[in-house]
Amino acid sequence: MCQLMGMSANVPTDACFSFTGLVERAGRTDVHKDGWGITFYRGKGTQTFRDLTAGSDCDVAAFLKQQSIKSDIVIGHIRQANIGALVLENTHPFSRELWGETWTFAHNGQLEGIFDKLNLSRRFVPVGTTDSEFIFCWLLGCIAEKFGEHKPQNTRMIWDYVYELSHTLHGSGVCNFMLSDGLSLASHCSNNLYWITRRAPFGRALLKDIAVTVDFAQETTPNDIVTVLATEPLTTNETWSKMLPKEMLVWEKGEIIARYVE
Amino acid sequence: MCQLMGMSANVPTDACFSFTGLVERAGRTDVHKDGWGITFYRGKGTQTFRDLTAGSDCDVAAFLKQQSIKSDIVIGHIRQANIGALVLENTHPFSRELWGETWTFAHNGQLEGIFDKLNLSRRFVPVGTTDSEFIFCWLLGCIAEKFGEHKPQNTRMIWDYVYELSHTLHGSGVCNFMLSDGLSLASHCSNNLYWITRRAPFGRALLKDIAVTVDFAQETTPNDIVTVLATEPLTTNETWSKMLPKEMLVWEKGEIIARYVE
Repeated sequence: MCQLMGMSANVPTDACFSFTGLVERAGRTDVHKDGWGITFYRGKGTQTFRDLTAGSDCDVAAFLKQQSIKSDIVIGHIRQANIGALVLENTHPFSRELWGETWTFAHNGQLEGIFDKLNLSRRFVPVGTTDSEFIFCWLLGCIAEKFGEHKPQNTRMIWDYVYELSHTLHGSGVCNFMLSDGLSLASHCSNNLYWITRRAPFGRALLKDIAVTVDFAQETTPNDIVTVLATEPLTTNETWSKMLPKEMLVWEKGEIIARYVE
Repeated sequence: MCQLMGMSANVPTDACFSFTGLVERAGRTDVHKDGWGITFYRGKGTQTFRDLTAGSDCDVAAFLKQQSIKSDIVIGHIRQANIGALVLENTHPFSRELWGETWTFAHNGQLEGIFDKLNLSRRFVPVGTTDSEFIFCWLLGCIAEKFGEHKPQNTRMIWDYVYELSHTLHGSGVCNFMLSDGLSLASHCSNNLYWITRRAPFGRALLKDIAVTVDFAQETTPNDIVTVLATEPLTTNETWSKMLPKEMLVWEKGEIIARYVE
């Protein structure tokens, strides 16, 4: 399996505290050492860092933990390979352009027989060999086919459709995923996905996987709203909400704009 | 304008020496300080680093200069913005997936009126507002339309077509570019593009923009063949070849596999 991390905020926010906790699980406090990646949206543009080295022992990850990249939406991933070799093209997050926007996807789970079950469009073709990139291409192909040349003005229609599509995946196995178009962040839960929304009054937080504390009151303004998602809670002194099986939440500016549940 | 850098090698090779020279021109020895980016192919996978900070004064670039990322094909770029705001989505190199391969593009030049002159396909749409990403989308759209669902076995047909398409661009201004599918690297010259192929016996090289020397004999094996391309020669003690106007060279494993010239 793998582990996911996500962030949605109403102001560009530094996600390095959460990333610091996550990458400890990439070889030190947990086994997800088969590469890692993280995408930061800054407006329409993205910055993606990825590497094949275990995140807990990787120069690029160590460098990133010291940076302060301010971002509206973040998707991060640490990999424990099951389907697909340990090569760079199998490293999440994956990205594709649709309607002049960069879409980003990361997945935790394993989907048996998915390659035979779903037909891809000709437009989005996997570069690597993971089930994860395969379903990302399938999702985008379906979205592009349904809505055609232009993104619908009512973007809620897209997320309705993504939730509908997610039902096709449930029968094949575990499928926790994050998907973003740079404006919204969709988080879909099969079995393990937690979230926490931080807002004023901000307090201190203590990472679970390494002795690092942050006082968010020093880092934020009273209007900031920042949601962090993770496969397992990243901090010990805060209450994280666990998503339900087959629940999908769509986030904008740190808040839920759509909730789907069976 | 901007400056380009490229590398094609027959073994995964560290391009940090060339990158070190290039980013000096991003604010110190030259004016290309409006962001920078570099894509490393490692097999089918890519690692891209980019930032909006001037390359000569950027933490990410400083970090990269100390790394030793071994790559088959590299495309690098430092930007002096003309068309398109100073935002991350306007930072080269650009990438898109076609036929399950990651295609990468960077451009130096300015193409007047290009937005009105060329029609884009629906499939490849710019995320940013540069003329550069626009012509990349146009090139890929033309390629996808001409060859259809599958990449032609004889990839020479693709490069023949890219060269044919490049004629459409010449009338609009300066268009030096690098384009790669991860297997070949095409370098197209309008006015300024130099290359050098290093092979045994390897010697020492001295960067032009900063007092850094490397002894390639210590870094290579006798079978290595490494070509580096740049808008202006990166070293002072070696002889670089200047490409001709409207010349396009296609490189594989450090050697020319196709040459196009008027």
